Amino acid sequence: MDIREVLEAVRKGDMDIAEAERMLRMDHLESIGNDVLFDESREMRKNIPEVVYGQSKDYGTISEILKKRKGKLTLVSKVDEEKYAYINSLVHGTIYVKEAKVVISGKMPKTENGVIGIITAGTSDIPIAEEARIMAEAMGVRCITAYDVGVAGIHRLIEPMKRMIDEDVSAIVVAAGMEGALPTVISSLSPVPVIGVPVSVGYGYGGKGEAALMSILQSCSIGLTAVNIDNGIGAGATAALIACGRKR
Amino acid sequence: MDIREVLEAVRKGDMDIAEAERMLRMDHLESIGNDVLFDESREMRKNIPEVVYGQSKDYGTISEILKKRKGKLTLVSKVDEEKYAYINSLVHGTIYVKEAKVVISGKMPKTENGVIGIITAGTSDIPIAEEARIMAEAMGVRCITAYDVGVAGIHRLIEPMKRMIDEDVSAIVVAAGMEGALPTVISSLSPVPVIGVPVSVGYGYGGKGEAALMSILQSCSIGLTAVNIDNGIGAGATAALIACGRKR
Amino acid sequence: MDIREVLEAVRKGDMDIAEAERMLRMDHLESIGNDVLFDESREMRKNIPEVVYGQSKDYGTISEILKKRKGKLTLVSKVDEEKYAYINSLVHGTIYVKEAKVVISGKMPKTENGVIGIITAGTSDIPIAEEARIMAEAMGVRCITAYDVGVAGIHRLIEPMKRMIDEDVSAIVVAAGMEGALPTVISSLSPVPVIGVPVSVGYGYGGKGEAALMSILQSCSIGLTAVNIDNGIGAGATAALIACGRKR
Amino acid sequence: MDIREVLEAVRKGDMDIAEAERMLRMDHLESIGNDVLFDESREMRKNIPEVVYGQSKDYGTISEILKKRKGKLTLVSKVDEEKYAYINSLVHGTIYVKEAKVVISGKMPKTENGVIGIITAGTSDIPIAEEARIMAEAMGVRCITAYDVGVAGIHRLIEPMKRMIDEDVSAIVVAAGMEGALPTVISSLSPVPVIGVPVSVGYGYGGKGEAALMSILQSCSIGLTAVNIDNGIGAGATAALIACGRKR
Amino acid sequence: MDIREVLEAVRKGDMDIAEAERMLRMDHLESIGNDVLFDESREMRKNIPEVVYGQSKDYGTISEILKKRKGKLTLVSKVDEEKYAYINSLVHGTIYVKEAKVVISGKMPKTENGVIGIITAGTSDIPIAEEARIMAEAMGVRCITAYDVGVAGIHRLIEPMKRMIDEDVSAIVVAAGMEGALPTVISSLSPVPVIGVPVSVGYGYGGKGEAALMSILQSCSIGLTAVNIDNGIGAGATAALIACGRKR
Amino acid sequence: MDIREVLEAVRKGDMDIAEAERMLRMDHLESIGNDVLFDESREMRKNIPEVVYGQSKDYGTISEILKKRKGKLTLVSKVDEEKYAYINSLVHGTIYVKEAKVVISGKMPKTENGVIGIITAGTSDIPIAEEARIMAEAMGVRCITAYDVGVAGIHRLIEPMKRMIDEDVSAIVVAAGMEGALPTVISSLSPVPVIGVPVSVGYGYGGKGEAALMSILQSCSIGLTAVNIDNGIGAGATAALIACGRKR
Amino acid sequence: MDIREVLEAVRKGDMDIAEAERMLRMDHLESIGNDVLFDESREMRKNIPEVVYGQSKDYGTISEILKKRKGKLTLVSKVDEEKYAYINSLVHGTIYVKEAKVVISGKMPKTENGVIGIITAGTSDIPIAEEARIMAEAMGVRCITAYDVGVAGIHRLIEPMKRMIDEDVSAIVVAAGMEGALPTVISSLSPVPVIGVPVSVGYGYGGKGEAALMSILQSCSIGLTAVNIDNGIGAGATAALIACGRKR
Amino acid sequence: MDIREVLEAVRKGDMDIAEAERMLRMDHLESIGNDVLFDESREMRKNIPEVVYGQSKDYGTISEILKKRKGKLTLVSKVDEEKYAYINSLVHGTIYVKEAKVVISGKMPKTENGVIGIITAGTSDIPIAEEARIMAEAMGVRCITAYDVGVAGIHRLIEPMKRMIDEDVSAIVVAAGMEGALPTVISSLSPVPVIGVPVSVGYGYGGKGEAALMSILQSCSIGLTAVNIDNGIGAGATAALIACGRKR
Repeated sequence: MDIREVLEAVRKGDMDIAEAERMLRMDHLESIGNDVLFDESREMRKNIPEVVYGQSKDYGTISEILKKRKGKLTLVSKVDEEKYAYINSLVHGTIYVKEAKVVISGKMPKTENGVIGIITAGTSDIPIAEEARIMAEAMGVRCITAYDVGVAGIHRLIEPMKRMIDEDVSAIVVAAGMEGALPTVISSLSPVPVIGVPVSVGYGYGGKGEAALMSILQSCSIGLTAVNIDNGIGAGATAALIACGRKR
Repeated sequence: MDIREVLEAVRKGDMDIAEAERMLRMDHLESIGNDVLFDESREMRKNIPEVVYGQSKDYGTISEILKKRKGKLTLVSKVDEEKYAYINSLVHGTIYVKEAKVVISGKMPKTENGVIGIITAGTSDIPIAEEARIMAEAMGVRCITAYDVGVAGIHRLIEPMKRMIDEDVSAIVVAAGMEGALPTVISSLSPVPVIGVPVSVGYGYGGKGEAALMSILQSCSIGLTAVNIDNGIGAGATAALIACGRKR
Repeated sequence: MDIREVLEAVRKGDMDIAEAERMLRMDHLESIGNDVLFDESREMRKNIPEVVYGQSKDYGTISEILKKRKGKLTLVSKVDEEKYAYINSLVHGTIYVKEAKVVISGKMPKTENGVIGIITAGTSDIPIAEEARIMAEAMGVRCITAYDVGVAGIHRLIEPMKRMIDEDVSAIVVAAGMEGALPTVISSLSPVPVIGVPVSVGYGYGGKGEAALMSILQSCSIGLTAVNIDNGIGAGATAALIACGRKR
Repeated sequence: MDIREVLEAVRKGDMDIAEAERMLRMDHLESIGNDVLFDESREMRKNIPEVVYGQSKDYGTISEILKKRKGKLTLVSKVDEEKYAYINSLVHGTIYVKEAKVVISGKMPKTENGVIGIITAGTSDIPIAEEARIMAEAMGVRCITAYDVGVAGIHRLIEPMKRMIDEDVSAIVVAAGMEGALPTVISSLSPVPVIGVPVSVGYGYGGKGEAALMSILQSCSIGLTAVNIDNGIGAGATAALIACGRKR
Repeated sequence: MDIREVLEAVRKGDMDIAEAERMLRMDHLESIGNDVLFDESREMRKNIPEVVYGQSKDYGTISEILKKRKGKLTLVSKVDEEKYAYINSLVHGTIYVKEAKVVISGKMPKTENGVIGIITAGTSDIPIAEEARIMAEAMGVRCITAYDVGVAGIHRLIEPMKRMIDEDVSAIVVAAGMEGALPTVISSLSPVPVIGVPVSVGYGYGGKGEAALMSILQSCSIGLTAVNIDNGIGAGATAALIACGRKR
Repeated sequence: MDIREVLEAVRKGDMDIAEAERMLRMDHLESIGNDVLFDESREMRKNIPEVVYGQSKDYGTISEILKKRKGKLTLVSKVDEEKYAYINSLVHGTIYVKEAKVVISGKMPKTENGVIGIITAGTSDIPIAEEARIMAEAMGVRCITAYDVGVAGIHRLIEPMKRMIDEDVSAIVVAAGMEGALPTVISSLSPVPVIGVPVSVGYGYGGKGEAALMSILQSCSIGLTAVNIDNGIGAGATAALIACGRKR
Repeated sequence: MDIREVLEAVRKGDMDIAEAERMLRMDHLESIGNDVLFDESREMRKNIPEVVYGQSKDYGTISEILKKRKGKLTLVSKVDEEKYAYINSLVHGTIYVKEAKVVISGKMPKTENGVIGIITAGTSDIPIAEEARIMAEAMGVRCITAYDVGVAGIHRLIEPMKRMIDEDVSAIVVAAGMEGALPTVISSLSPVPVIGVPVSVGYGYGGKGEAALMSILQSCSIGLTAVNIDNGIGAGATAALIACGRKR
Repeated sequence: MDIREVLEAVRKGDMDIAEAERMLRMDHLESIGNDVLFDESREMRKNIPEVVYGQSKDYGTISEILKKRKGKLTLVSKVDEEKYAYINSLVHGTIYVKEAKVVISGKMPKTENGVIGIITAGTSDIPIAEEARIMAEAMGVRCITAYDVGVAGIHRLIEPMKRMIDEDVSAIVVAAGMEGALPTVISSLSPVPVIGVPVSVGYGYGGKGEAALMSILQSCSIGLTAVNIDNGIGAGATAALIACGRKR
């Protein structure tokens, strides 16, 4: 029963007030939660697929979750090949994107809700960029990618930047490890928001993405924000959300 | 001379090739810079005012910069009252927003390029939120603010969130110090991207915004990105950039 | 109007269902907040005074808050003497506990909701211990204190521990800076929960309470938990909450 | 011989004073230790089982300890399946709770010394919550659990919180990794002390429980204290100790 | 009454057993403390003066402590000139060693309990070295000092090292800031234990003594141990304790 | 087509201006990149071999890169024996320097562009020193090495230092783990720049090269600079670059 | 030839001055090194065995070192069982102390140069304590050990402390992980210097010995110094050095 | 007497062997130090002026040092205006470079030992760059400077880089705070070694030069090394040393 039905039952005398009050207070709390309150939010968010963080879960748990989802679009991130082999033996109809370590269960959307750009500094950053790409595509957003453009050869940046601007991307994801200078450089050239993803590449002092994260956060380039180290999903989702916003 | 003029001079025989090559290579490098290359970028970025980070500059330097800008819209951030007094005695026609510690020089735009929301967890976060607001308004973006909504009383969040969603904000800035839980909560309720600004409030372990920054980066809420601690300018600018993108 | 009144209006036909639904959904959200839901919570929590963290607020803001509270019991923590002088000139009827840097506004309770113990390792830890004491007393809980008992002379611990056990304290707050060994030692002797408060005393590596916090968290003594460095208010409140719980 | 017996021997002349003094000073020091001094403490603490931290001990050492304990209730924490297999082949009559990685040796109590609540933010936090549950139950305290309630959907918190308050829990343990916002939210709704357990889930900056620990310590919610990362045993024991205190 | 007196009263029948037991257990706990147990310890330690850490105490507290000590040898460390001026106006008969920021109250010993060496790398390390020297002299130990010997010019080390070895020092204190290489070099040349004191000189990464502390702890030179940054008192006391040990 | 060819085509009327402009702007951007601009730079840099950071790349990626390089001199660093076995089975004609974990593909130069010195503190630092040596030799620079000279025995430093100075080295690379004092000592004796390479040897506080890096950065010895922990390639390359500079 | 022989050759005219000068300057530098200068040092240090840090060396390197040492007393630390198996197959006549992970090559001394105490807080600290014991015994110093005395039960400390004082130990090594409170407690009871060894036991915040190291360095107990985490060798050597000093 | 004179005295019989040996061993140690051994080093280093780190020294100490130097070229770094006023009143003939906070005492050289480049990212980095410039000039090296070139506008880098390459600089110093991306970009364009100086500008996470230092150390650009944060002196000196090396 929803609120309206309770109220009508009260009006008709089919339900006494004490019972109605109890239902409205306690039993129906779930329906008074935010899902009810923010219809618009829910509507706008409905094209965001479920994402399962696969690293801290074993294959059994993941398989169970996928079964429960019954084919609704679900991404499982940070799944290595071995773990996928087990999942694959338990759940049918999934796709494994090895480069990105992502399992896709359910149907990817066909609509185009917008377009974003994805750039990486080096080849080691590509898996995280691919994670971002899959997430964005799962939200119905097309991705223009330019991988391994480096930071030194500015001329290597110009062609892909030009292409992205020409195609009117809504946001650009830049994945970079090591010293993480690329997001700053891209952001200074970009007319749209840039989401920097530090990548856990690098060694010694500032290694494992720490220097890259710091660089992105210290950057004074307007329009640059950060997600956590290796969080390709988050970067792709935010960029896609911006794209979807423009589409509306 | 721009590229076209050089080429025409060459075609007409008014300039020999060596000279033309020299101009195209060395002397005109400045014009081959990114300003030339990215006309569209430049156009799209033209409503971003100049921002001067005032903390590490003395009043003399700031005053000189403002004079050089000759009334073009310029914001100077992190300026305390005493420093402003000196600046004010040297440069005419500036406005000082004490709460935000921002000096405004030049005319704020009258256009409305979009609308964003700005929320703070506590009263101590307001100066940073105000910094974000001024920056966004300087980009011609209207701001709906809801300050001091806390994190505990979920019902205090609901009314402002509803209002922001109703007004179709393009992005929401959430400023929070201490444990920094609010950006996560807001982001989970929001249909649009949320930019979390950690605020340097708090003490002991995780104080000075460190816990808040970590919370935002660790959050698995889709659509949440971070700027550095106390970087209200960056948060406001990114939110406004998203809003402007939708307006185009 | 509360839920019951709305329901009765519906039953009586004084309000139509659409209006009732709207009220129950949006306009009355505030009353559907947690205050309404958790009557018992609210009741149990009602003897917790308002606490204002005074460090990051100027005297003007604090004075305004105190005036708004209209004499309801309020503690303002981390207020130095100079700031209090200003507050005192603006707000009447407050008490300043210099040792604890706490301003008390409103009446302290006379009831005794229980009893707790408060112990410090050194004299430098006393201000934080006093903060805890005032907070607990503001919740109607009596405090037995034993300050500067050191960590080395175990015999100096025994007498106060004995007294606290004899008086059946519900919990013990232990404030300690430097190497922070005392909370572990006390906890191992104590039949009741111990709340360790690291104090920002100490220098060099592990200084400013960091070593003390680590010691408390690393301790394997059963029943020992931590609050953040210098958080006397939090420690006192938790201990008092435990005491109040037993009283019920 | 205890003190009384020595004294009686002296009175009867069966022991000379020098000998008695020696016994009272040196030889009997062990009996003058804290076990003797704090009879009440010992009594109150007697329902706390022995806990062995299994991670840094090999199966041989653990087996030996369990044999020495001769069936008195003992918990061994952080024991993985493989290590348990070895222990099981050496010691009879133990139970292994795989989810919590805890070995139980001896009989769990049947009395009910009170009741506490245990909540987790996500599924990855459950092992630590289970560790807390076993510890509390080993102290004769009943546990109401609510796992995977998230932090975003406030309505999902309300039902279990209501149930816990209705059952008059004495304390609530909240286990949370990632950004660790849940303990703050729960504590703000709770009339009883909350013990936050950061869980070593999460990645990049603030990963491995660091952000969660910081969030808990930075939180200004009254009544919230912290144990170290993954210390489910400590959290369960403290919550149970509070419950037992009320029972007395 | 001490233990023997109680026992004699029991033997004579002047005290009944219950009373004697009570006294031996509770009332006399203080006398069963470690002062009683370790007569030898106490004797050996009796030439260690009281040390008051002056930094976290105001002049009032310090003055009060000095008065209570009634002229027994007491050192107050980390007292700046201004604070001493106040102390001097309240307490008579103290000496202030400005270079070391130490206040001496009471008589320094005249005996020579041994001899130690004290070396500094630079001139900035001298205040900490002087703190060590005063502490050692307050324990009746003579000090041979060699300040500002650098780390580069190995020949500048040789003469003072030779002198110290000739005079048969029992231990050497080495104070060093910046990169802190000197303690390692000295220790490798020294036949006696070396106590390294990191000094809070230096800037940027590893500044404030952190690099020096790390260097000392990482050093694989046999016989080198560390005290905390700027802890000249601790270094001097340990070196003197070693010297006193040889004297016995 | 290069700039000159475009210009000539324009002059000859073989290309219209719009086309020429387009080519000069967009299509030929790559050729206007820094390779074109800095002919001298490129010339001077042409003896720097390609370096591939092997650690974060799998053998497949590395093999592919080597094949694409078609025998041009390429170094792959941080490749363990197992990974090399796979590479070796896929790419012919490579050399594996096990000690340095470096794969060499292509011909090492025979010219002598200068000479540098390489020194290590211990035997554990040798792999990093060897990495530096191979890099320098790949740039045509001869290396004088002195490994395991320690820091304590100053006399052990003198002979190799003398030899290096006699052979007029242009720079000295010093690899050191643990407390990292050696680079400071060498630099103070050296007439030429010293490049310190912290090595990830050591344990506990300041382990994994952190203390060594700090020591090098804190050192006030003139002429000493640092590369990151274990970055033998970078140190060797910089030293060789200095040597090549003198040769020109 | 030593200095005297050169001088005599000069006096006799058997060597010309230029040659003599050369020898005294360059060729004989080694003999002018510290071994020559500090005869006494060398004498006093001659009972310190060679120690090889085994962790960062493979079995081949270790075996080679042991062979070169030709039976002179050598300890190899941090060698696990598997590595020892290989060493044992290559080098004859070594002893492996599994508990301490130390390989002993050569004859342990029979003299008694003094006596020290070694105490551990828990059972997990024993391996490090055993490392210290072997080192001290290798220097001819007898060790009184008391393992697993805890920190809580003060009475468990008293008996071993009494015994150590009675046997007149020259120094006490205290190994402790977790919160590391024991070294402080022991030091406060001890008449002789205490060397604290933090042990890498513990988890979460302050784990791996960090909290223990901080506790020892923060402690204000007179006579307590620290070695790095798990550095049992260093602690044992320093304590033994102090003991040997008293023996002279 | 130097070695030769002693030997001749021995040969002539003017000095007996025991005396000669004593002189050669002990009394003349200073002359056997490194100054004697490395004549060439000393010669090559003689154009390096004395540098005094002024921050941790008071004006009295600095003045005394300058007087002792008797007009030999000396730089005092990190001296603020107020401190200089005092120094100026005590020592005559010094020059104060306010921008760089450097005091120059003695005559700057007129020779030109080479040329280097100095570049800054922003205006806030200029003081550190100026410190480097003065140091280099004090070593007789000419400096080409290009300040405030930013990181975003690549075209702004090209002109100064071209000029520096044309003038054949031997090395380039790049000072950068905030995210510190510039040294990486410059190094990738530069044919000569680049010395990166992180500048303590920036705020929040990675502020005070930490992000910049990390960026420089993480950079994989060949030829880039780092000095510590704000160490302009060290950067300038190293660059000048490289320049001087080419000049020889």
